[in-house]
Amino acid sequence: MPETERRGDSVGAAVLAAGFGERLRECGCPKPLARVAGLTLLERTVRTLRAGGLDGEIAVVVGHRGEEVTGYCKERGLPVRVVENPDYPRGNGTSVLAAMRFLPERFVVAMVDHVHTPDSVRRLLGCEGDFVAAVDTRPVYADPGEATRVRIEDGRVVDFGKKLPEYDGLDAGLFLCSRSALGRLREAAGQERLSWNDLKRAWLASGGEVVACDLAGAPWTDVDTPRDLRLSEEMVLGWAASGNDGPISRHINRRISRRITRRLLDAPLSPDQVSLLSFALAALGAGLLAAGRLRLGGVLVQLASVVDGCDGELARARVESSPRGAVFDATLDRWADALIISGLALGAGTRRAAVAGYPALAGALLVSYTRARWEAALGRMPSRFTGLGATRDVRLAVLALGGMLRAPVAALLATGILGNAEALRRLLALKKERT
Amino acid sequence: MPETERRGDSVGAAVLAAGFGERLRECGCPKPLARVAGLTLLERTVRTLRAGGLDGEIAVVVGHRGEEVTGYCKERGLPVRVVENPDYPRGNGTSVLAAMRFLPERFVVAMVDHVHTPDSVRRLLGCEGDFVAAVDTRPVYADPGEATRVRIEDGRVVDFGKKLPEYDGLDAGLFLCSRSALGRLREAAGQERLSWNDLKRAWLASGGEVVACDLAGAPWTDVDTPRDLRLSEEMVLGWAASGNDGPISRHINRRISRRITRRLLDAPLSPDQVSLLSFALAALGAGLLAAGRLRLGGVLVQLASVVDGCDGELARARVESSPRGAVFDATLDRWADALIISGLALGAGTRRAAVAGYPALAGALLVSYTRARWEAALGRMPSRFTGLGATRDVRLAVLALGGMLRAPVAALLATGILGNAEALRRLLALKKERT
Repeated sequence: MPETERRGDSVGAAVLAAGFGERLRECGCPKPLARVAGLTLLERTVRTLRAGGLDGEIAVVVGHRGEEVTGYCKERGLPVRVVENPDYPRGNGTSVLAAMRFLPERFVVAMVDHVHTPDSVRRLLGCEGDFVAAVDTRPVYADPGEATRVRIEDGRVVDFGKKLPEYDGLDAGLFLCSRSALGRLREAAGQERLSWNDLKRAWLASGGEVVACDLAGAPWTDVDTPRDLRLSEEMVLGWAASGNDGPISRHINRRISRRITRRLLDAPLSPDQVSLLSFALAALGAGLLAAGRLRLGGVLVQLASVVDGCDGELARARVESSPRGAVFDATLDRWADALIISGLALGAGTRRAAVAGYPALAGALLVSYTRARWEAALGRMPSRFTGLGATRDVRLAVLALGGMLRAPVAALLATGILGNAEALRRLLALKKERT
Repeated sequence: MPETERRGDSVGAAVLAAGFGERLRECGCPKPLARVAGLTLLERTVRTLRAGGLDGEIAVVVGHRGEEVTGYCKERGLPVRVVENPDYPRGNGTSVLAAMRFLPERFVVAMVDHVHTPDSVRRLLGCEGDFVAAVDTRPVYADPGEATRVRIEDGRVVDFGKKLPEYDGLDAGLFLCSRSALGRLREAAGQERLSWNDLKRAWLASGGEVVACDLAGAPWTDVDTPRDLRLSEEMVLGWAASGNDGPISRHINRRISRRITRRLLDAPLSPDQVSLLSFALAALGAGLLAAGRLRLGGVLVQLASVVDGCDGELARARVESSPRGAVFDATLDRWADALIISGLALGAGTRRAAVAGYPALAGALLVSYTRARWEAALGRMPSRFTGLGATRDVRLAVLALGGMLRAPVAALLATGILGNAEALRRLLALKKERT
């Protein structure tokens, strides 16, 4: 019995990586090893599946230039089973059949040349059905001229093809299948050419249903050409730089941090190290503020605020975000906040600034504390907690301006008022919260 | 079909409150309405069941002085169904049978005169079996001369009785039963006298198993006499004042806070209001410190630290703890910390103290922040995070002493070193944590 059979309800995956990839030949490497945003397509697919909650075995099916791909998997220590498919010239349907015997009852079929995010995998895994296809009724990045089109009726895919004149969405190249259902097609699919689309057609012809899982505009694309590689890198960076940002971050910081992150993608720097770099910039800025170099200190504070976005962007772009990394970054951020406020309060050299720093420090840390404490207690942040502009990007911009404009007391008072007012608002909102 | 039948897997409860309660007659009220630590036995039982995770209907069976008990339930708006049992003089087994038709398949049988904690209910609800009995092999509060003794073999109760010469534990008066299993006993149990013990004997005689759920020293007791009432109040207060305390809290603060809490039990004060009282004391202390009244301010800070224990004690003693209340208290505590440190740093009037306050404030808030942020990210605190003495009781004692001994700078530096060292230790520990 293969190991995976014993794993209860785990979901496995077949990653189809055996094809020719003709149009990427100029890259010099087999298509699965082409790089997007610092990761090969193959490693990105594996990480995305895991990050999306897939817990069973991942079978990577290799064919064309299979030895190179196999060697890469071993060298990188990828946690996958490599399955050789000598039949790959007959079509990628044979690759699915080759992988199936190593997979549990439920498994995902993923194309190595499709770039997805963990959220899309998570959404797919949440669907029920013997055959679920991720589709996109509002495609943003994928090219409707290149991709497979689908017709959808009542949440079911009823037809598909590259040339469909009328269509409701695109096939996103990500599927959730049941092995026992697909196993019934082995004989029906004894054709000479056997693509994955042939298998899907056989399934539909046998009366099987294909449940549509609508990604509805989520970032995904497929990669066939060098231009696609660049486009998908833009997509990944854009997705990595999105989030629940404050206004300064959204309109200013992210535009710069994204450019920095792009340069860091292939650098031997971990997101933790980028967190430390941002902290070092903040500490340096705080030191300059404390030494009375207010203008330069203010500039460094704003720079630290920009670089503070890069650690998370880098982690998301490389599909290696972790709660541990987020806690590490958040803790360093709080220390940086404390250093910056102390520097500004003490560097001005006046009693007034030294006093104004205390409410500023308390307010800044209380905004962060109330959010964390509430999430710890209830597992989530109440929606009414968000909205006011006491986010870190705003606070740091106020403090940086306080330095650059040589107005430390005003900046500290503003920080104190912003932070404490928001914390007080949360405390009052807490009264109304049902628990 | 009674409402409860539709509720899937919910667990109900029969609360036996029909008995005579002879030995408590001097209280002037029916036994279920006798008060322990600010709550009637009946309301305490209902709240304990709910707080322990019981989600189905609670049927309170009344008999002796039933009208008074029924009136009380209505007046207090207790979320229970009152079931009248005219047969109660025949024994409390008839009360279980009377309640059963209003209860779902799985239900708890609880004696109104047994005081338990939510943890014991939670443990019982986690057990499997048609008939589970909570027993205690290491009783602390219950009297082996009064309680029903049990013999246990292989995790099963094999015999019970008040006079068993040899026994392995005590019957804790809390059971988890399956209605279909107990239903089979209706005929077998057609005797004139029918106590709950008679029903249990019939179950054992019919070959049924009684699974033993060992409370193993958890606080519980039964209440028969006025002396028992006082003893159980001590037990409840002791349990309410226990917890993961720091050394100052354990050895000093709790001894005082427990006395204060005892006086608050019947006062019309909510735990939130006690949190506000503690905050007000801290704010007053901080104001005195800021005004240069260091000694008096220090005393008030320590007093606030003592009273800070009372809100949680009161909530636990009244079985009304909530995550919301804990967040409210924790947020006020952080503000109080900030005010006290600011007061001490600025009240001394020296530049040195004004500087030393910044690391103190950052360290104090970072200890609280790192814990909350980690729990928010991972749902728990890593065990290696606890241990060092940077808990709030220690911090406030250091600051209070700093005021009382007129040594603000030393106290602020100590607070800063304690807090920042602990936060740094956690940051380094984070590196080793698997997530």
